[in-house]
Amino acid sequence: MESSLLIEESLQAALDGARGPAGPAMLAEAMEYAVFPGGARLRPQLCLAVAAACSGAGARADAANLTALVPATALELLHCASLVHDDLPCFDDAALRRGKPSVHAAYGEATAVLVGDALILLAVETVARRLRDDPVRLAPVMITVCEAVGAPDGIIAGQAWEMEAEVDIAVYHRTKTAALFVGACCAGALSAGADPEPWRTVGAKIGEAYQALDDLKDVFATAREIGKPVAQDRRFKRPSVLDVAGPEVVSARIRRSLRHALAAVPVEADANHLARLLDGAVGRFLAMLDKSRAA
Amino acid sequence: MESSLLIEESLQAALDGARGPAGPAMLAEAMEYAVFPGGARLRPQLCLAVAAACSGAGARADAANLTALVPATALELLHCASLVHDDLPCFDDAALRRGKPSVHAAYGEATAVLVGDALILLAVETVARRLRDDPVRLAPVMITVCEAVGAPDGIIAGQAWEMEAEVDIAVYHRTKTAALFVGACCAGALSAGADPEPWRTVGAKIGEAYQALDDLKDVFATAREIGKPVAQDRRFKRPSVLDVAGPEVVSARIRRSLRHALAAVPVEADANHLARLLDGAVGRFLAMLDKSRAA
Repeated sequence: MESSLLIEESLQAALDGARGPAGPAMLAEAMEYAVFPGGARLRPQLCLAVAAACSGAGARADAANLTALVPATALELLHCASLVHDDLPCFDDAALRRGKPSVHAAYGEATAVLVGDALILLAVETVARRLRDDPVRLAPVMITVCEAVGAPDGIIAGQAWEMEAEVDIAVYHRTKTAALFVGACCAGALSAGADPEPWRTVGAKIGEAYQALDDLKDVFATAREIGKPVAQDRRFKRPSVLDVAGPEVVSARIRRSLRHALAAVPVEADANHLARLLDGAVGRFLAMLDKSRAA
Repeated sequence: MESSLLIEESLQAALDGARGPAGPAMLAEAMEYAVFPGGARLRPQLCLAVAAACSGAGARADAANLTALVPATALELLHCASLVHDDLPCFDDAALRRGKPSVHAAYGEATAVLVGDALILLAVETVARRLRDDPVRLAPVMITVCEAVGAPDGIIAGQAWEMEAEVDIAVYHRTKTAALFVGACCAGALSAGADPEPWRTVGAKIGEAYQALDDLKDVFATAREIGKPVAQDRRFKRPSVLDVAGPEVVSARIRRSLRHALAAVPVEADANHLARLLDGAVGRFLAMLDKSRAA
C-alpha cells in the first residue's frame, strides 16, 4: 500500500478509538477536523522513509514499515495538536489553517484547548497500545516521541522560547521545528532496529531547511497557497532567517541543509527514497520561488 | 519514607528533568509553580495505598510501592495539567488556585497553555523512562494512565461534556472526576502485579464521593478554605449533585459511596490504610460541614 494511504488509514483508526461508542460528540468531531484533511504529512512520511532506508526490501522492511507507522501516526497527531494550540487567540490568533477555519474558529476556544490535549493523549496511547507486544521498541520509541515534543528540547519548549526576553534563533528553530523532524528520523530508525544516533543530524538538518522554508513562505507565498495566514513573523516580531539574509541566500542555505542531511545518512542505509521525499516537499517550492523571482 | 514525602520528591525529580540545562526558563518556572505547593495529592496517595493494599508488607511491598510511585507521579502531573487548562479564561476563568494566582494569572495565557501541554508530556515521559526496564508493567500502566485522561472516557472528555447540549450528570462526573481515581486505583494494582479490574469499582465509587464533595464545597465552603473560587457550578450552570438533593442527603450519599468503595476492595487486599486515607480526605470535611450546619 502507498505510504500516504497507510498514514491516513492509521490516523483514522487512532481517531476511531478516541471517539468511542458514547463519548462527547463535538470533541470527537473537532479532533477529526484538526487531523483531516492533512497537509503534506511530512513528518510521518519522513519516519517511514527512514525506516525503509534502514531496512532494505522484503519481509524485514515490511515489519519495520509497520512498526514505524506507529510513531509516524503519533508524531502527526502531536503535530496537529501543536497547530491547534498555536492557532489559539493567545498565540497566533490564526483563523485559517490548511485552507479552512482553524479549530478554535470553528468550534470555540475551549474545545480547541481540549482537542490539543486529547490529541496529545491519543498519540501516546496509540504508541502504548500498538507496541504493547513489542517491549524492546515501546520504551525507546515512546521516549523519542516525548523528547521531540515536551520540555526542555521539544516543540512545546520551542513555543515557550517565544515568551522569553532573549532567544537564540538557532535554539528557537531547533526546538520549535527541527525537534519533531529529529523525532521522526530517530523513531524511524528505532522501528527498523537501527541505531537512531546518526539520524539525529539528518533530522536536524531537514528541520533547519524546513524552518527556513517556512520563513520564506511567510514572506513570499500567499495565504491561499499555504492555507494559513502569512506575514506572521513580522506581525509577532519573531526571529526569521530573512532578518539577516535575502531570499537567494536563504534558498541556497536550504538546499545546502538538505545536502548535509543526505550526506549524514549512514552509509549502510538507502537514501534514495528519502532524497525524493525531500525534493518533493522542499525542492518544488524553491524552484517555484526562483522562477517567480526571476520573472 | 513517608508516602507524602516520596510523592513530593518524585514530582520534583520529574520537573528537574523537564527543566534541562538550557531550556526556556519561564516555562520551567511556571511548570513548577503549577505543581508546587500541591493540594492533598489524593490521586497519587490513592495509587500508593492500593499498591500497598495489594502487596502486604516486606520486600514485595517495597517494590510495588516504588513501581506505583511512577503512575502516582504521572497522574498528579496530569491532574495539575488539567487544573491549569481548566482555569483558563475560556473555561472557568479562575484567577485563584490552591490559594495563589492561577498559572495564567501569574504567567499569562500562552504560557499556561504550554504548561498544561508540557506537564502532559512530562507525565508520559516519566512513565516511559522509569518503567523502561519493566516491560511487563510499562504498556498496561501507560494505557491505564492514558485512558484515565484522554478521550472518550478520561478527564479531557469529561471537560468536553460541558460543551455538549445534553449531558447525563452521571457520565459527566464519571469522566470529569472519577476517571482519574479509577486510573489511580488500577495503576496501583498493576504496580503490585494484581488484577486491576476489581479496583475499577473502588476508584469509581471514590470518584463519585469526591465529585459530590466538590459540589458541596462549591456551595458551602469559602474560597479561602478551598483555595479556589466558589459558586462556580451556579455561575457556569453546571450540573451539581445539589440540583436534586439537599446537603444532608448528599452528605449521606458520599458516606455511602465510600462504604461501597471499601466494600469493593478484593478480599485478599488490606483496606485499612485506604480507609484511613479516605477518612482523612473526605470524612474530615463532612464532619466539619455537619457541625457547622448543626450550629
